[in-house]
Amino acid sequence: MGGSLLSQDQRVAYLGPKGTFTHLAAQQLFLDDQLSSYQSIPACIEAVASKRVSYAIVPLENALEGTVPLTIDYLFHEAELYVVGEVLTPIEQHLLVHPQQAKNWETLTDIYSHPHALAQCHKYLYNHFHGVPLHETASTAAAAKYIAEHPNECIGAIGNKAAAETYKLKIVERYIHDFHFNHTRFFILANENQRLLQQGHEEQIKTTLMIELPSDRSGALHQILSVFAWRQINLSKIESRPLKTGLGDYFFTLDVLEDENAPMMRGAMEELAALDCTVKTLGSYFTYKK
Amino acid sequence: MGGSLLSQDQRVAYLGPKGTFTHLAAQQLFLDDQLSSYQSIPACIEAVASKRVSYAIVPLENALEGTVPLTIDYLFHEAELYVVGEVLTPIEQHLLVHPQQAKNWETLTDIYSHPHALAQCHKYLYNHFHGVPLHETASTAAAAKYIAEHPNECIGAIGNKAAAETYKLKIVERYIHDFHFNHTRFFILANENQRLLQQGHEEQIKTTLMIELPSDRSGALHQILSVFAWRQINLSKIESRPLKTGLGDYFFTLDVLEDENAPMMRGAMEELAALDCTVKTLGSYFTYKK
Repeated sequence: MGGSLLSQDQRVAYLGPKGTFTHLAAQQLFLDDQLSSYQSIPACIEAVASKRVSYAIVPLENALEGTVPLTIDYLFHEAELYVVGEVLTPIEQHLLVHPQQAKNWETLTDIYSHPHALAQCHKYLYNHFHGVPLHETASTAAAAKYIAEHPNECIGAIGNKAAAETYKLKIVERYIHDFHFNHTRFFILANENQRLLQQGHEEQIKTTLMIELPSDRSGALHQILSVFAWRQINLSKIESRPLKTGLGDYFFTLDVLEDENAPMMRGAMEELAALDCTVKTLGSYFTYKK
Repeated sequence: MGGSLLSQDQRVAYLGPKGTFTHLAAQQLFLDDQLSSYQSIPACIEAVASKRVSYAIVPLENALEGTVPLTIDYLFHEAELYVVGEVLTPIEQHLLVHPQQAKNWETLTDIYSHPHALAQCHKYLYNHFHGVPLHETASTAAAAKYIAEHPNECIGAIGNKAAAETYKLKIVERYIHDFHFNHTRFFILANENQRLLQQGHEEQIKTTLMIELPSDRSGALHQILSVFAWRQINLSKIESRPLKTGLGDYFFTLDVLEDENAPMMRGAMEELAALDCTVKTLGSYFTYKK
């Protein structure tokens, strides 16, 4: 594909280091030399908010682990950004070793990875490396980096193919994850409410809204959903997150399968305002799948 | 209070080690010598499921961080248990040092705690210990234990008063957390659908339901909420979690402010079944506050 949207000096922040699943997702839409690695989700979001980069790409939700709370909370509480596209990336894990250890991989003494990746390969590890100590790292890429820096040790990492390429490791077993439907959903964020002008997206448009209900009015959430239900506007997701004002106070994120500029949606937004809801729209965007 | 429900040989599992906030919550309802520390949330849940203990107490939700996904997911996917009571505990953080270092606490070289506790004391740490390295530990109690084991180092931990007592540390600054409304909600779990026969609870009863919607029927969540709304049954919480069958597939946990045996609730449950929902009830229970 390649970043037709970007001029030479424009850049895209992603949650690093090199070789993370966010890096892999970013490569689905942008050229690798347009990408800048940032250490944390807030750092990615601040990079675009302060206009040091044109876009940021951050993980939003995984099919097994659920929402990434930091992304949702930071977008609600701290940032004024828009979603200009979303990327769905399959989570495929491989066993990586240093090329010097390629012949010894069946006798690994230690295995390193992110806790989620270790959990996602539980059956494989149980069947093939029962009793081998597992070590947790901050990311799958950090595990790969550690292996690259210790060529003389007979140790392995679990990570993706981007990590193998970045850290010049050998993939000795492919697709070792237990759940083969696992995907992660990433948001591409920008300062303007636009849409990513890239080809290859799904036809269905989506709008993400963050809604704060009028305080403590019984049945308020039912009213909100009625606004969409009687208009036959479908929702693909609803999720609550703490408002951080006290236990039991929530805001809701809704993914609506409609363009925010459609006449029905404009009516819905007016009705939400009449119900005393505070609505923050993250905009309408298309989905890019691999 | 003290565990009037428990005979001499009955025990309660809690998420340890000693001195965690779960330990503090357990002490609100049970005697300390009835409590057994377990290393993880699944270990606590399995201890009661296998009848090695009579109850387990695990964290469910924090006012700042939101739901503890592991608790919700394990209760939905892996266990057949009931909630017999919930405990609300204020999250109060203190600065702890070894008694040998009590006079030197203003010149600490390093501070240890759980990442959430470090985040919750961000302003205090910024104002009083700017530039001092912060180290992440698996729990606030683990940080306190580390300080106790290193009496000659001028280092501190952030933790609660139970951690200070357990590891014989000195509290040198009290209530250093930034948000003074912060609470955590804990579930007390058992094998039978009963209610904790302890005095001192709130009058309002709550029922927790876990609902799987009929697959992909548009507006299904709105229908579910209608079941409760037209009966004027209030909900205090709704949350979605991944079904782990694919991105976009969720189940919902609902906290309903009604007794599951009330006639209106029996009608609601029948209507949910007629709507092809799969409903798992965790039972009705009372709230214990400090």
